[in-house]
Amino acid sequence: MAVHEVHISYKQGMQFETDSPTGYKTFIDTSPENGGNNDGLGPKAMMLSALAGCTGLDIVFVLNKMRVEVPHFEMTVKGELTEEHPRTYHKVWLDYHFYGAHLDQTKINKAIKLSEEQYCGVMEMFRQFAVLEIGVHFHSSKG
Amino acid sequence: MAVHEVHISYKQGMQFETDSPTGYKTFIDTSPENGGNNDGLGPKAMMLSALAGCTGLDIVFVLNKMRVEVPHFEMTVKGELTEEHPRTYHKVWLDYHFYGAHLDQTKINKAIKLSEEQYCGVMEMFRQFAVLEIGVHFHSSKG
Repeated sequence: MAVHEVHISYKQGMQFETDSPTGYKTFIDTSPENGGNNDGLGPKAMMLSALAGCTGLDIVFVLNKMRVEVPHFEMTVKGELTEEHPRTYHKVWLDYHFYGAHLDQTKINKAIKLSEEQYCGVMEMFRQFAVLEIGVHFHSSKG
Repeated sequence: MAVHEVHISYKQGMQFETDSPTGYKTFIDTSPENGGNNDGLGPKAMMLSALAGCTGLDIVFVLNKMRVEVPHFEMTVKGELTEEHPRTYHKVWLDYHFYGAHLDQTKINKAIKLSEEQYCGVMEMFRQFAVLEIGVHFHSSKG
């Protein structure tokens, strides 16, 4: 049975340090209007980053398997918070942007579909609390 | 309507860079057995860090409001993954550890209860996909 474990310790102000099963450490903090110094990731938005990171890793993994060169790509994730407390993301938009003159759109779409339907555990968790809208955008150059 | 937005861009190997509404940037990566270099947070485990960060901020916020000195504290979060794919955390253990000779246990417990019941949006999202077990531990010293 696979278990992931993380440790988070309070530093000062509103700042925390977190590790990850990879051993990498980073900071969590909040904005000055909430008493922090912006010296770390916002915890709620970390969920949005986790979603993009999870599906992003799937896409690199699948394209590598297909022997398709991984193009430059970026993701934007937007999460709309509920009005009522505790505030949760009830609607989430995930947009993929791929850049390059010769993008293999068919294989990229296949990789995204595999992530959505079979691989991405974070996306599956999001589906339990949010409506997810996915957009895929191909750009011939970074423009 | 409050919307959070993050941007994630592919760097190389299995590494991504993410920002956060705080403006702070950090890396996402995976372990060598999954093709990465451990040079970033693991995306799935970022969810566990987000949970601890969210409730941790609540606790600092509430203790500050109560004019209780915030003691050193740490959290451990364990998430058990399902066997079936996509793998999600179906069971999560969140343990708070507070350290100090004169801990105000009543007020600390009150702060945790407020986070659990009213403030922590990440915890509320977790409850939609996982069974959550919470433990609170008081230690008279770090030793």
